[in-house]
Amino acid sequence: MPSMLTDLRSAATTVITDPSATTSYSRDQCLGVEAGVPAAVVLARSTDDVAATIATAGRHGVPVVARGSGSGLSGAANAVDGCIILDLGRMNHILDLDPIARTARVQPGVINGDLDLAARRHGLRYVPDPGSRAISSIGGNLATNAGGMCCAKYGVTGDHVMSITAVTGAGEIITTGASTRKNVVGLDLTRLLVGSEGTLAVFVEALVRLHPVPTAFATLAATFPDVGTAVDTVASWTSVSTPMAVELMDRTTVQAVNRLTRIGLDDDAGAVVLAQFDDADAAHAAELCASIATANGGEAYASDDPADGEAMMAARRAAYPALEAMGATLLDDVAVAPHRLPELVGAIESIARRTGVVIGTFGHVADGNLHPTIVYDPRESRARDAAMAAFHDILDATLALGGSVSGEHGVGSLKTSFVTRQVGAAEVALMHGIKRAFDPLGILNPGRAF
Amino acid sequence: MPSMLTDLRSAATTVITDPSATTSYSRDQCLGVEAGVPAAVVLARSTDDVAATIATAGRHGVPVVARGSGSGLSGAANAVDGCIILDLGRMNHILDLDPIARTARVQPGVINGDLDLAARRHGLRYVPDPGSRAISSIGGNLATNAGGMCCAKYGVTGDHVMSITAVTGAGEIITTGASTRKNVVGLDLTRLLVGSEGTLAVFVEALVRLHPVPTAFATLAATFPDVGTAVDTVASWTSVSTPMAVELMDRTTVQAVNRLTRIGLDDDAGAVVLAQFDDADAAHAAELCASIATANGGEAYASDDPADGEAMMAARRAAYPALEAMGATLLDDVAVAPHRLPELVGAIESIARRTGVVIGTFGHVADGNLHPTIVYDPRESRARDAAMAAFHDILDATLALGGSVSGEHGVGSLKTSFVTRQVGAAEVALMHGIKRAFDPLGILNPGRAF
Repeated sequence: MPSMLTDLRSAATTVITDPSATTSYSRDQCLGVEAGVPAAVVLARSTDDVAATIATAGRHGVPVVARGSGSGLSGAANAVDGCIILDLGRMNHILDLDPIARTARVQPGVINGDLDLAARRHGLRYVPDPGSRAISSIGGNLATNAGGMCCAKYGVTGDHVMSITAVTGAGEIITTGASTRKNVVGLDLTRLLVGSEGTLAVFVEALVRLHPVPTAFATLAATFPDVGTAVDTVASWTSVSTPMAVELMDRTTVQAVNRLTRIGLDDDAGAVVLAQFDDADAAHAAELCASIATANGGEAYASDDPADGEAMMAARRAAYPALEAMGATLLDDVAVAPHRLPELVGAIESIARRTGVVIGTFGHVADGNLHPTIVYDPRESRARDAAMAAFHDILDATLALGGSVSGEHGVGSLKTSFVTRQVGAAEVALMHGIKRAFDPLGILNPGRAF
Repeated sequence: MPSMLTDLRSAATTVITDPSATTSYSRDQCLGVEAGVPAAVVLARSTDDVAATIATAGRHGVPVVARGSGSGLSGAANAVDGCIILDLGRMNHILDLDPIARTARVQPGVINGDLDLAARRHGLRYVPDPGSRAISSIGGNLATNAGGMCCAKYGVTGDHVMSITAVTGAGEIITTGASTRKNVVGLDLTRLLVGSEGTLAVFVEALVRLHPVPTAFATLAATFPDVGTAVDTVASWTSVSTPMAVELMDRTTVQAVNRLTRIGLDDDAGAVVLAQFDDADAAHAAELCASIATANGGEAYASDDPADGEAMMAARRAAYPALEAMGATLLDDVAVAPHRLPELVGAIESIARRTGVVIGTFGHVADGNLHPTIVYDPRESRARDAAMAAFHDILDATLALGGSVSGEHGVGSLKTSFVTRQVGAAEVALMHGIKRAFDPLGILNPGRAF
């Protein structure tokens, strides 16, 4: 048998093995875990390339790590030693965009924001809006079941995909789901692949839903004395309206944003909440929610001027950069039932006090999904250790509240040690049984996700 | 080893073996397929009962067919010869209804409508609304991923469940999902169980989401010269509003409703569409959509009076009874991409003309999910054969349009021969691989669903 690399070179179009070139493909944007050294990087240009790469890897028992645009935050696309990195960035074509069916058929390397722009030429949009949408790919979004701000109303990436074409670890090309909105024929393989982080199959095509661009838009900014009041108020809002996004920033984050920008949020507020509305009665809904906030002891300002709304949301978008400006960061991603957010924020505050690290918390309050961000001095090893300890303490606190150690970023290689504690041993064993059905040789992203 | 029945009697609380009593548990409401003769019926009262029954069945290699309220329409709960029917109707307790978390923890036998009523005492509702909601159970709804009218806005049953506790075919008790709205830890076992029609595990508990009761409500009735105009108009509606239900009736159905009731629909209309709106601006949305209908050559009437709306929707609810009043019926359940509905309705009409059977078509137009209902004289064997042939012709026509042979009723034992054609052989093989992980002995509802 020829060597793996000889075999791979004759199978795939573009194979890189020069270590100076493969290094840049060997990790995603997660700083918390190490990456291995790949044997080769394949720049896939077609489904055939993907299938040939997986077949070759199978013959040689070599792991395959699929990679989108490398914007992941959990190390799911980090190299395993000796693996083939299967880069899908060049498979970035929108194959079909059907304004009548309101669907798009895309390759996995299509950038989320590019698909949205293409849809907007037809009065449509691609709704899922992870913070990374300008750089992250649809394939990666599907592999992690990416969230974003508008999940409050529109759900996560998995709620917008109808069908996936993928190559399994056995080298078979499968197509899941249907082109219909409702389909109950057979098991739901589409939702099984969504969020599987490259462990079951490598995605080569997806059929996603598009939605009409909303006809109205309004934004609300509110400050509250504490997170509990903010969370209670958001629950009242969602009783009378359907905001598309409801974002929270805690006091540490607000103060960081004020230091970085001239936005001038209330430095003394216990919590700032920004909400956006896109129902036909958006302006009225924002005013109604503003009055509820005021009645609850907050201060609120609503506007249906898009530029105004953009300026308000800029504060939320500045949250992570503002915390990054203070030092090295560890961005976490935890979720609890929304009404338990005050307990989670309280636990995070007490971890910050106890360990002496700075933790700024912001996130998607209507979904109960927060991003506590630990800021530390990377030059001090003791600070690094304290940061990592705080990171784990936050995950422990989340589990103690019945929560999830990842709401939208995925487990990757960062949080594998928490999976069994959250999910249960019998459930993890079933996941491995499912993996064996898709990937009998165990070559696809081994050791990741579960 | 003791006999299976001896073993079962010592394991489960209530075991019925008298054939005169077991017969009434041996089939669901699907008339198109035969049912086998069960060896026993277990009336389960607890998770322990379910686990003990499955363990006993495993030891003796006997099939287990789980049963909710028996309202299924695809024979998924029909007995297999010699099986144990595992009836979950007595596990019908709402274990917890948390108005703050907006969730309910329920046993599988809870009736859909009962859960909704309980939620309404707290200003909440259980949204999924299959036509059978007065009699169908949450467990059965989950097992078939039941649809309903309000899927147009709110999605299917699977969009409203957060966690399922179930007993696998290996007798293990597992809990999937999380109590959070977002969770990407491990594979999505919840969505895998939803729609699995009793083939992977028997559900013993579910955590479902509740939603606030809407503050506004409006209804629209419109008639159109033909189905194509109706479908185009519905697409225009969903560009500017989010109706919660959009229901279509074809001419045959309209005429049947007029014969049965005094509702007095336009007998000459090519299609009648009823839509309901529950956004805060519902009345305005209904008016706007009425004017769009008129501009497209239809006639439309909108009302925000609830009693008025109720009267209008009564026509849609009369559709199936009206067709049933004409003879025996075969109710089908097919889905296509919504813009292909005119082609599907055209194909159904041509099948009716060619075969001479009466087919009334109604259903969920915004989702592309129709229920062509074949009416025939059950006393004539030739009519029965023609009806069954037309039933299969409709499924063929649906597949030719890239559609699904079941949008919301499930495959059961009625449509198994169509699964591989729709889904593909490799995909069906993966489903069997998944089944082996959950049910290594192959005892759970063998031969059904895929």
